[in-house]
Amino acid sequence: MLGKREQKRADLKAKLLAATILRIENDGIASLRARDLAKDAGCALGAIYNIYEDLDELIFHAKVEIFRRMEERLADTMSNTHDLSPLDQMRKLTSSYFQFAQDNTKLWTALFTGDLTDQRDVPKWYQDALMRLMGHIHGPLKQIAPDTSDKELSLQTRTLFSAIHGVILLSIQDRPSGVTHQEVEKATDWLLESISKHMK
Amino acid sequence: MLGKREQKRADLKAKLLAATILRIENDGIASLRARDLAKDAGCALGAIYNIYEDLDELIFHAKVEIFRRMEERLADTMSNTHDLSPLDQMRKLTSSYFQFAQDNTKLWTALFTGDLTDQRDVPKWYQDALMRLMGHIHGPLKQIAPDTSDKELSLQTRTLFSAIHGVILLSIQDRPSGVTHQEVEKATDWLLESISKHMK
Repeated sequence: MLGKREQKRADLKAKLLAATILRIENDGIASLRARDLAKDAGCALGAIYNIYEDLDELIFHAKVEIFRRMEERLADTMSNTHDLSPLDQMRKLTSSYFQFAQDNTKLWTALFTGDLTDQRDVPKWYQDALMRLMGHIHGPLKQIAPDTSDKELSLQTRTLFSAIHGVILLSIQDRPSGVTHQEVEKATDWLLESISKHMK
Repeated sequence: MLGKREQKRADLKAKLLAATILRIENDGIASLRARDLAKDAGCALGAIYNIYEDLDELIFHAKVEIFRRMEERLADTMSNTHDLSPLDQMRKLTSSYFQFAQDNTKLWTALFTGDLTDQRDVPKWYQDALMRLMGHIHGPLKQIAPDTSDKELSLQTRTLFSAIHGVILLSIQDRPSGVTHQEVEKATDWLLESISKHMK
């Protein structure tokens, strides 16, 4: 059990983390200010730095938590899909990823802002969560072409994730070079069908 | 001919634009400060706002100029490629786009930060430059599948651009979910071959 002082510290830590995620959700990661977070958590500005080395460390922990939530949601979507064809599994993952990005645009954008792994110690379970996320693509690809080497499959998995991510990113940002929200499903279907046909 | 006052104004305008691009190139778009730009251009802070409505307007013009440079470079790469197969044309464009992103990472990143078209009057030639850029993809795709409708081709063009952009973006940002710089060519080749095969 934690002592009174440790408990207070743990409470403040949790409050600061929650405040950071809420601020990102409402205003975006670019406008985060330590002063606002201290106010939200009801502590003095200096108290933040008794817990986190700097604002970047606090943001890093917020991103890790956002990633955990996203991965949890995707894992949930994919939990009962083993009867689906490989193509339909990938369609379902893509649709769930797009939905998360639409429902949580500012949180999702924060995930890809700055360096997630830069210098900080990335928790082991974060690495595991990333592996699980990639596994939702790796699995179907291996079903399509079981003889592909692991090295090749790893490259194809990351390539396909990047491609789908690119389509969704430019769409979410309303870039004229991207596709509209209404076109995302058709666009990603076309990519998934192309690579699936190519691998067979 | 411009009067003396107009000439001075035009000179300062050009200096501010050049200073903005240089600052983005060296330090990235996030750390731009009006105070630094005034210093670089040798004018008072307030003088900026006699020329540009606000810092965002100045940044918008800087982005338009960065886009112009990139499009010029890609057009140059693609100027003598009409003898190449459609697949090789797209390979060449991809390679040139990746090269630009590597050589000018901070400028290229700035292009996709914030809203390029948001509220501002986008110059006609910017629209034309975007059309030319997309044309380098649209052309080869139409060669591969001449019977595809224009509407379909437009979607496929934007989808392919977004996919290639995604692969290059996550690689440039060194994301663990992306491919390494060394793998970019193989990754984009795989995508290009897949869609080319799928369209035939």
